[in-house]
Amino acid sequence: MDFRIEKDTMGEVKVPANAYYGAQTQRSIDNFRIAQDINRMPKEIIRAFAYLKKAAALTNFEAGVLPKEKSDLIGKVCDEILEGKLDAEFPLVVWQTGSGTQSNMNVNEVVAYRAHVINGGQLTDKDKVVHPNDDVNKSQSSNDTFPTAMHIAAYKMLLEVTIPGIKKLRDTLAKKSKEFMHVVKIGRTHFMDATPLTLGQEISGYVSQLDHGLRAINNTLAHLSELALGGTAVGTGINTPEGYAVNVAKKIAELTGLPFVTAENKFESLAAHDAIVEAHGALKTVAVSLMKIANDIRMLSSGPRSGIGELFIPDNEPGSSIMPGKVNPTQCEALTMIAAQVLGNDVAINIGGATGHFELNVFKPMMIYNFLHSARLIGDGCVSFNDKCAEGIAPIEENIKKHVDNSLMLVTSLNTKIGYYKAAEIAQKAHKEGTTLKEMAVKLGYVTPGEFDAWVVPANMVGKI
Amino acid sequence: MDFRIEKDTMGEVKVPANAYYGAQTQRSIDNFRIAQDINRMPKEIIRAFAYLKKAAALTNFEAGVLPKEKSDLIGKVCDEILEGKLDAEFPLVVWQTGSGTQSNMNVNEVVAYRAHVINGGQLTDKDKVVHPNDDVNKSQSSNDTFPTAMHIAAYKMLLEVTIPGIKKLRDTLAKKSKEFMHVVKIGRTHFMDATPLTLGQEISGYVSQLDHGLRAINNTLAHLSELALGGTAVGTGINTPEGYAVNVAKKIAELTGLPFVTAENKFESLAAHDAIVEAHGALKTVAVSLMKIANDIRMLSSGPRSGIGELFIPDNEPGSSIMPGKVNPTQCEALTMIAAQVLGNDVAINIGGATGHFELNVFKPMMIYNFLHSARLIGDGCVSFNDKCAEGIAPIEENIKKHVDNSLMLVTSLNTKIGYYKAAEIAQKAHKEGTTLKEMAVKLGYVTPGEFDAWVVPANMVGKI
Amino acid sequence: MDFRIEKDTMGEVKVPANAYYGAQTQRSIDNFRIAQDINRMPKEIIRAFAYLKKAAALTNFEAGVLPKEKSDLIGKVCDEILEGKLDAEFPLVVWQTGSGTQSNMNVNEVVAYRAHVINGGQLTDKDKVVHPNDDVNKSQSSNDTFPTAMHIAAYKMLLEVTIPGIKKLRDTLAKKSKEFMHVVKIGRTHFMDATPLTLGQEISGYVSQLDHGLRAINNTLAHLSELALGGTAVGTGINTPEGYAVNVAKKIAELTGLPFVTAENKFESLAAHDAIVEAHGALKTVAVSLMKIANDIRMLSSGPRSGIGELFIPDNEPGSSIMPGKVNPTQCEALTMIAAQVLGNDVAINIGGATGHFELNVFKPMMIYNFLHSARLIGDGCVSFNDKCAEGIAPIEENIKKHVDNSLMLVTSLNTKIGYYKAAEIAQKAHKEGTTLKEMAVKLGYVTPGEFDAWVVPANMVGKI
Amino acid sequence: MDFRIEKDTMGEVKVPANAYYGAQTQRSIDNFRIAQDINRMPKEIIRAFAYLKKAAALTNFEAGVLPKEKSDLIGKVCDEILEGKLDAEFPLVVWQTGSGTQSNMNVNEVVAYRAHVINGGQLTDKDKVVHPNDDVNKSQSSNDTFPTAMHIAAYKMLLEVTIPGIKKLRDTLAKKSKEFMHVVKIGRTHFMDATPLTLGQEISGYVSQLDHGLRAINNTLAHLSELALGGTAVGTGINTPEGYAVNVAKKIAELTGLPFVTAENKFESLAAHDAIVEAHGALKTVAVSLMKIANDIRMLSSGPRSGIGELFIPDNEPGSSIMPGKVNPTQCEALTMIAAQVLGNDVAINIGGATGHFELNVFKPMMIYNFLHSARLIGDGCVSFNDKCAEGIAPIEENIKKHVDNSLMLVTSLNTKIGYYKAAEIAQKAHKEGTTLKEMAVKLGYVTPGEFDAWVVPANMVGKI
Repeated sequence: MDFRIEKDTMGEVKVPANAYYGAQTQRSIDNFRIAQDINRMPKEIIRAFAYLKKAAALTNFEAGVLPKEKSDLIGKVCDEILEGKLDAEFPLVVWQTGSGTQSNMNVNEVVAYRAHVINGGQLTDKDKVVHPNDDVNKSQSSNDTFPTAMHIAAYKMLLEVTIPGIKKLRDTLAKKSKEFMHVVKIGRTHFMDATPLTLGQEISGYVSQLDHGLRAINNTLAHLSELALGGTAVGTGINTPEGYAVNVAKKIAELTGLPFVTAENKFESLAAHDAIVEAHGALKTVAVSLMKIANDIRMLSSGPRSGIGELFIPDNEPGSSIMPGKVNPTQCEALTMIAAQVLGNDVAINIGGATGHFELNVFKPMMIYNFLHSARLIGDGCVSFNDKCAEGIAPIEENIKKHVDNSLMLVTSLNTKIGYYKAAEIAQKAHKEGTTLKEMAVKLGYVTPGEFDAWVVPANMVGKI
Repeated sequence: MDFRIEKDTMGEVKVPANAYYGAQTQRSIDNFRIAQDINRMPKEIIRAFAYLKKAAALTNFEAGVLPKEKSDLIGKVCDEILEGKLDAEFPLVVWQTGSGTQSNMNVNEVVAYRAHVINGGQLTDKDKVVHPNDDVNKSQSSNDTFPTAMHIAAYKMLLEVTIPGIKKLRDTLAKKSKEFMHVVKIGRTHFMDATPLTLGQEISGYVSQLDHGLRAINNTLAHLSELALGGTAVGTGINTPEGYAVNVAKKIAELTGLPFVTAENKFESLAAHDAIVEAHGALKTVAVSLMKIANDIRMLSSGPRSGIGELFIPDNEPGSSIMPGKVNPTQCEALTMIAAQVLGNDVAINIGGATGHFELNVFKPMMIYNFLHSARLIGDGCVSFNDKCAEGIAPIEENIKKHVDNSLMLVTSLNTKIGYYKAAEIAQKAHKEGTTLKEMAVKLGYVTPGEFDAWVVPANMVGKI
Repeated sequence: MDFRIEKDTMGEVKVPANAYYGAQTQRSIDNFRIAQDINRMPKEIIRAFAYLKKAAALTNFEAGVLPKEKSDLIGKVCDEILEGKLDAEFPLVVWQTGSGTQSNMNVNEVVAYRAHVINGGQLTDKDKVVHPNDDVNKSQSSNDTFPTAMHIAAYKMLLEVTIPGIKKLRDTLAKKSKEFMHVVKIGRTHFMDATPLTLGQEISGYVSQLDHGLRAINNTLAHLSELALGGTAVGTGINTPEGYAVNVAKKIAELTGLPFVTAENKFESLAAHDAIVEAHGALKTVAVSLMKIANDIRMLSSGPRSGIGELFIPDNEPGSSIMPGKVNPTQCEALTMIAAQVLGNDVAINIGGATGHFELNVFKPMMIYNFLHSARLIGDGCVSFNDKCAEGIAPIEENIKKHVDNSLMLVTSLNTKIGYYKAAEIAQKAHKEGTTLKEMAVKLGYVTPGEFDAWVVPANMVGKI
Repeated sequence: MDFRIEKDTMGEVKVPANAYYGAQTQRSIDNFRIAQDINRMPKEIIRAFAYLKKAAALTNFEAGVLPKEKSDLIGKVCDEILEGKLDAEFPLVVWQTGSGTQSNMNVNEVVAYRAHVINGGQLTDKDKVVHPNDDVNKSQSSNDTFPTAMHIAAYKMLLEVTIPGIKKLRDTLAKKSKEFMHVVKIGRTHFMDATPLTLGQEISGYVSQLDHGLRAINNTLAHLSELALGGTAVGTGINTPEGYAVNVAKKIAELTGLPFVTAENKFESLAAHDAIVEAHGALKTVAVSLMKIANDIRMLSSGPRSGIGELFIPDNEPGSSIMPGKVNPTQCEALTMIAAQVLGNDVAINIGGATGHFELNVFKPMMIYNFLHSARLIGDGCVSFNDKCAEGIAPIEENIKKHVDNSLMLVTSLNTKIGYYKAAEIAQKAHKEGTTLKEMAVKLGYVTPGEFDAWVVPANMVGKI
């Protein structure tokens, strides 16, 4: 392998000859040999950095502290990063310095050196047209750029993956709820037979959960829209030109098309990541909802002959390597595993968020890694579950009818006619003797057959639809 | 001990002769001998039940399904419960049926039997003027009353204890932030010396955290304001009169003075407690903030002679049973222990929320127990921390000045004058040789003494205040 | 209310006239008004302190640093504490200083002042025969006494409540497993019908879980048996007589009848509580097992008519305030709520354990509060579940037989005869056309009726029993 | 892209022409488009499958149910997998069916098809010499193979990565502890100055934590050594030859060189993963220890001028993109982020473990993904921390001496001479008036200068070393 020599303030480092990155990136590779094959810094963070470096260069140019040529070159490299052309140049892992400084420097180095090459230079030139610290990082610090990249990446992921995924599933369930609104079925509480409702009503509960979940996510976007950029080293904005914080946030908003603003308080933005904690609190709420929904669907579709068997879900693949013909609710399983993961990620984020000190929280890479993981899993998981399962849900009417007709809990309609105690007696004796409710109700002399038929009508027990 | 015999639909039970509760309460005492001395159902839930039973009785009366006499009697007992007169009558624990049915029945029994006694009857009378199920529980089920009580209790606790507690601390910190806005001190990132900021700026970050936390809590109140009442057994509203759900929510709003409304979707309200999960997500965010703030304050006040020693906090009690004269940041310790507890409670709530099935979540008592615990701890904890610690915070100017004057990171102001690399060289060599920055800067020939004095001014490095 | 004046090193404090405690206890009451009605320091900690104060007094006497008279008086008060006579004298809450200093001082004060009274003195006497710090706390610090009390209380709770509770349930399940070893039933994987097993085999899995859980708990006892006492302020054992640490641990072992030893390393014992974290890791493992077991049992007993209905569990109480005759698996619900709580407590303990600094972890009261809570809940919960549910489990043979006979997964026995693919074809077509397996197998010409009957025998599919 | 047509029991599927995998793998790719770029099934699981498929083939051959030719071919492909030659053939993700069936089938397909090619066949041949289900999966089910692979992978990772990593760090710290055993320094409790200890003693506490952590991990290996293989579909061992379970476990033990045995109870092994939960409980305990150790080290090395500054740690990279010359404790940051991640993973594992139902836990891929992640992170993290930080730790004697000499807590040595109260008075007044302890002690007349010098000797306060 060919190498060239790069230098930083600590001395010389050998770097792969063709790598656009420099000494500090290489030091991080060498110093953090931790799960390097599986835990690379999420590419969404690298892209977010591209937006912010370009915005910073433009703002610096407009503030008169960076020449147009340099600003243009920086912008060009950022565009390449956004197009995914330089992905291989960002080899660092999550488990590095907790400020993300090394990933910031990785971006600074790649932008500077690639700019130099675009400009006709060589990677081996000692002096380069653009400098990683003095130009690409101008008016910035890792301490304000990394949290800015966190918010950009998180916000984008929520808007582009998470929310659309949840909405897609929500809309399918809403459609199914409407479609099955008149399918009367038995209710189940405590896993035990209860009074009837319709399948559409049951599914409407899931829709309501997701609607509230979407609102919960939306409620957290305001905090996420606040950008730390302009706070630099400790939040004071040292080494930034007049108006920089406000202007650079505007530029990022323009470039991303998202409503980013400069943070109300930069000291908070560097020292704490409550916005991430708060927004992930909404994600864990959705995870809780999804666990409930997926559990219900797999239990309602259990069987085919010795389970509840009220719901048909699509057969996507053979379910067993040993039991021929078996089909399993695999999409429910993927979704519930995702929910468990998100609930675990939440704890990692909480601990990271709680353990910042003084002017800087140094759990940044771990926090955003978990956040993006959760946001992605929920988005992808909802789409997969929607396309391969929810879309194909259908009632198995035969079983549904049998269950509702058998139910002893239809006796509840008699409460207002003969009182709770007599109604209970009917149900308990019917259960013990294995009779129908009607047989026992008449036998005990509490109602006539005609009264029973008039009063105990499942379809009348489901309320207004 | 004297007993009387009570009956429910399962048969006879011996109950303490003077207890207002009946058979079902006693069965629960006998069946759930789990931590009975320490985990009683929170009294806030009992009080919330009093509001809802009174509201239900009034609504039932207005709907013509309950006579005025009974409605009035029920209301009277509920008032007694709200005054705390009947606390001893609610002995059940959290670890009971997951729907809270037994606590609902405990309330139904106490209200019915106490009503009978108020009306001149005897506890031993076979027939009582008010019936627990047919009257007190009319138009209700445990399945909709318990979640309603959960939301009432949670909402009230947030408004009466949690939010005022956080606000009190926030206001004190805001006052301190203003007061110390011009106290220039060293910044610390990664626990290492960084560029300066003011003590007021540092504290302003805490204020911003709490401001955002308060907004986060407020964002979750809408979901909590939705009441399940009217859904009865499975969400369909079986056995309720026309308009009941809307009207009873209005009555509860009137009685409590809080903006409760009937839930958009009753199926969700019984089967899931995402509102509790979501709102506790905001509480855990605040816990994360408090952990950060309390940690900072105890580290800044560390010493008195071998720590950071920049902050004075009040001496409230002797700190050590063996080390004479020792004083410790005990309020910080209580608050950080509370934060840890809330983060644990969050997980219990998530698991409970995720594990509901079909028409009913049966982790209700556990969920609300943890929610109320967290809400109370944060509220009480903030007030205690405020009164006994935050109010007394003061800068120790001597140490603050010494630290800022010594700092090598003042070199950062030279970045824009001589570039990052030369500035780094100055700092590194000053560190290695133990000199001041100025000595080294001049020695290396990068600046003149006059330039140094003009360019490196801590007070100029803290930005606009 | 009557008061007397007490003094500590910080000055005078008003204390209730008859309270045995003194100034430092009162300061803590005044300074920590946090959930005082619900979060008192667990009484198990107070009792553990009684053992250790008595052991310390005896050891001090034997070392010649405390007169016999004082040692005897201290021992007498400790005995009173162990008999529960002085419970009201320990009003402090969990949310105090994180070292538990105030509870240590509470014990020191009560022991000293009560000793003085036993000795014929008055609470108002200025000089008392026994001094809280110099006598009761002799050769001790809060920093080594509180962790010692934590280990004593934790170990005792595990041995007296947790392990016996789990064992009781384990033994009942083992008995049931044996009893039902030949009841052939359908297996279920992914909630879907699978090949058969026996009910006894199924339950044997639960027994194995609890056996492993008990071993896991036992594995953690060695670390818990290590006592910090003798480390005093920071682990060095300052102000202790020769041989003190070893001797006092022996005394505690004698008094409690448990195999306590002095800790290998006192610096660890004060600065970290990994023994608590580790032992609670075993408790959370058991919680996971209990969640699984209780979930299975409630789902297997679901119905009575529209669920799985293979298991009878006892009817302990009316299950619904609105649905007459309903009976619910309430013991399963209490146990699963407990499991969720323990999993939450685990996180609180982890955070507390991870956040100790330098020579002292100051999350002690919170950690032991959660530990004792979990240990108690598991112990009590298992006994309740055992007595009111597991003991009464019985198969509902009719449903079990119906389910196994209907199952399409019996086809698995044909794999080794006709291959997986043809077997799959039989099952899929039988499912689609609603036939029996046999009908379809013969129709497709893959087996003769005689072969089918010989090869597909559920009782032969359950392996060696 | 070229395709060929593959078939499974559900029909035809297009597969990349050169892929060794078949229809079921492709279905999983198509059905689970969830984070496919970042969450591939861990390669350790694939390797573990290679061991078990080879062991099963050998055992099947010895039992006379598989011809030698097929057994040999299967073994050859497994060897290729173990050499990493076929990594690209295992594209499935974690978020698939919860039993891992699709990864089991992925292995079955690749082994069968690659065997066919090794044997001289073509991928496009309709009939292949080895069949995925009937040969490669013979005497197996996904339900027993996947948990077997989980235990193999987990056990190997613990032994090869986690334990050696922890040990390496432990040994370095033990060496440092010995080296610095006589460096007397100030103790700190509650972040406040306390009585002295030596740096070696302080570090010995970390060693003791890791020693106990290693024991905790070792305690969990027995449960992990139990293999599910032989349980097949539901634990009964259907379709396995006599003695298979015991023999195949022996084979796996031989092939891996690790002490694997057949599980005591196969029903547990499929339906629950308490061994994973339990073992991760030990990992989270170590995470808690590492968080404590890394926090201490970064705080002790804080400064360089305005922190505690008692510990030198190596400068590995420039610490700031804006503050020249800054060096940060980046290895501590990586390690604490890892600790937080492990504590989050623990919760995901707990939820997965608790949510298995009936005969099968279907959170398998998620559980092992998190387990392997934690085990890897701890192992790698300890090595990185060891090599780049712990190895270079050195005391900064000047600061250490200054701190210990200044400390007011040296007064504790006077407790046994003049009593706690007078000692407290000395410390408090010295603090208030800014004097030395000696000055105040003499001024108050409690000791003579000679007594003070004789009694207050830091080196005498650190106990036996």
